[in-house]
Amino acid sequence: MSNKIDIVDKGSVTTPDGFQAGAVFAGINKKALAGLDMGVIFSTAPCNTAGVFTKNRIKAAPVIVSQERLKLGKAAAIVANSGCANACTGKQGISDAEEISRLVAENLGITATDVLVASTGVIGQPLPMDIIRASVPLIKVSRDGGHDFAKAIMTTDKVEKEIAVRVKYGKNTFHIGGAAKGAGMIHPDMATMLGFLTTDAEVDLEFLREALRKAADISFNMISVDGDTSTNDTVFLMANGQSENDPITAEDIPYAEVFQEALNEVCIYLAKAIIRDGEGATKLIEATVSGALNEAEARKAARTIVSSPLVKTAVYGNDPNWGRIIAAVGRSGIAVDEHKVSIYIGNICVFKAGQPQSFNLEKAGAALQKTEVPIEVKLNMGDSTAIAWGSDLTEGYIRINAEYTT
Amino acid sequence: MSNKIDIVDKGSVTTPDGFQAGAVFAGINKKALAGLDMGVIFSTAPCNTAGVFTKNRIKAAPVIVSQERLKLGKAAAIVANSGCANACTGKQGISDAEEISRLVAENLGITATDVLVASTGVIGQPLPMDIIRASVPLIKVSRDGGHDFAKAIMTTDKVEKEIAVRVKYGKNTFHIGGAAKGAGMIHPDMATMLGFLTTDAEVDLEFLREALRKAADISFNMISVDGDTSTNDTVFLMANGQSENDPITAEDIPYAEVFQEALNEVCIYLAKAIIRDGEGATKLIEATVSGALNEAEARKAARTIVSSPLVKTAVYGNDPNWGRIIAAVGRSGIAVDEHKVSIYIGNICVFKAGQPQSFNLEKAGAALQKTEVPIEVKLNMGDSTAIAWGSDLTEGYIRINAEYTT
Repeated sequence: MSNKIDIVDKGSVTTPDGFQAGAVFAGINKKALAGLDMGVIFSTAPCNTAGVFTKNRIKAAPVIVSQERLKLGKAAAIVANSGCANACTGKQGISDAEEISRLVAENLGITATDVLVASTGVIGQPLPMDIIRASVPLIKVSRDGGHDFAKAIMTTDKVEKEIAVRVKYGKNTFHIGGAAKGAGMIHPDMATMLGFLTTDAEVDLEFLREALRKAADISFNMISVDGDTSTNDTVFLMANGQSENDPITAEDIPYAEVFQEALNEVCIYLAKAIIRDGEGATKLIEATVSGALNEAEARKAARTIVSSPLVKTAVYGNDPNWGRIIAAVGRSGIAVDEHKVSIYIGNICVFKAGQPQSFNLEKAGAALQKTEVPIEVKLNMGDSTAIAWGSDLTEGYIRINAEYTT
Repeated sequence: MSNKIDIVDKGSVTTPDGFQAGAVFAGINKKALAGLDMGVIFSTAPCNTAGVFTKNRIKAAPVIVSQERLKLGKAAAIVANSGCANACTGKQGISDAEEISRLVAENLGITATDVLVASTGVIGQPLPMDIIRASVPLIKVSRDGGHDFAKAIMTTDKVEKEIAVRVKYGKNTFHIGGAAKGAGMIHPDMATMLGFLTTDAEVDLEFLREALRKAADISFNMISVDGDTSTNDTVFLMANGQSENDPITAEDIPYAEVFQEALNEVCIYLAKAIIRDGEGATKLIEATVSGALNEAEARKAARTIVSSPLVKTAVYGNDPNWGRIIAAVGRSGIAVDEHKVSIYIGNICVFKAGQPQSFNLEKAGAALQKTEVPIEVKLNMGDSTAIAWGSDLTEGYIRINAEYTT
């Protein structure tokens, strides 16, 4: 990290000034590992708020409701639950999502249209509104409630995923906090993931939206557990201006770049945390594709590598099977000339300018046995680079998804 | 099957008149389950020949050599090996593929440019030419060598996949035979699959090419084991005219349709056989998408369902988790209105016109425990239908691909 951006010890979504959070166990997610299944983030000041959502054509009720509410870019609170996705639930689903936002608004003394909604869990079941009605009034928000919120959104996640950074730029200091959940249905173009980002910076709404789109593109949109994308994927970014910094706009270029850099770091941290905790995952694969004709092609190739079941199983099996890597690059459909390609697994060159290399199998095996496995493909066609992250594919993934209705 | 098309008992690629085949164990595929790893198909008369090949941008040497030779649409023999893909092997790979064709041509007394080449196995290793040179002369072709050929192309396949049909149309009788291999790297747009089709019909070259493209589109291009596609995928169709039928052309519509129907049946049989023998597979999933706006959209949705790891694991786990099915349809990007969609699992309606249905969990579980699991999604948007086939995803797939360099 640059000297302007520091990670805050035990940071969370409530590290930024003016944010509070809290959670309860309502009973929606009966298997809730961390004992909490519904959480709220609240800002004492209204926020410029941006969101990115699933590209799945089937959108869950909370996505539809939140997209509508974000048209004006304002929010003051978010309510999220695990255990039920409230997807494919028809008109009832929409009115349930709206009712939850009203209940939360009453509890916080704000208006319902300032409350965003996110759900994750099983598709096609209605929300248990009776227990939700009983539980929302029990949610107490506080300055140290961020960790509870991170716990409340977990489904098959084994650990909570949260971070906060402190950013200094000239006389301005502000924070960005974040929490996210995985852990299956995770694929480029969002995932069954929810992400919640908070900042006490004052940020121009248009720039905030653009910054979130850019950060999601190089983080949450570059990860793959299993190639499936969900009906509920959502990332929110709330900016409440409580740090009393100079307002950040796209025009103030170095300042905007620092904000973007900090936001990128938070999003990449959370994206990699999702992959590390991917269903059944034992390793994080980091695929770098360089020398592509353009960024779109570099992204496509990197995403295809980390999405390939054969690459994922080879990494799980500590097998330096670079043939599967180059086959994935070829399958991605990008411009590639086999005779120019070089491939590195954990810094060991296994294929150079179109020729298989003899390499030390033991060293390659050792590189693959680490919990982070870097793979680099140099296309030598142009100047563009992209990085994608994926989990390995293991028997654990099969067990979780064959035995658990998610 | 219609009364014009009958399956031949113990049929193979040598069922059609004028075709011979044979195989040896050369030692290229040391794990060859059936004890054979190199085979030849030979026609005593020159054949109009069509081919369809991988869409992977990285193409193996035998694909490059065979594509070039098929420009004129003529061939008299095919040599195929398992155990080594001869992919990413540079100029040496091309000259090795050419040398094999010369060796086979000498053995058969024909010219090398009339020999097509196909390889399957590990990517990035050179062919062991010394043992191939010693082994080609040992290949004896005969009228009953079809079964040996089907065995020689197996890699992780557990069973050989072959079929032949007899077709009667007016006074004409002809045959179509076929053999194929899977069993991983299998995905829509061809697969790590090789397919070899023979017919003793006399067929116009242009129509033969078109018929093969059409048949592959509804068979080999509609199956998925794991979403990966290989560098070597190839299907050849040789027509030698030895049945002395009236020549088949596109203009003679009912006659051409009968040929197309028979070819489709052979290809669908082999495609489904590949899925049944998919790596680690215990079940065949047949996904029908009807009521799509057009055929392209129906195909896309059906392929996405059978490619979804979450659908595949749910079927493996006997879990009627229709949420994963509709999420896959939404992810495919086709036009879909949740409120018009109905979903059936094994003829049990689980979702109707946008509403989750209460259904008998025991009956649904029983439907999922069968070795063939039909899934139907009715979009109710238009008139187009497509069918795709996929295997379930099991611990067995992980074991095979984590432990075996393929």
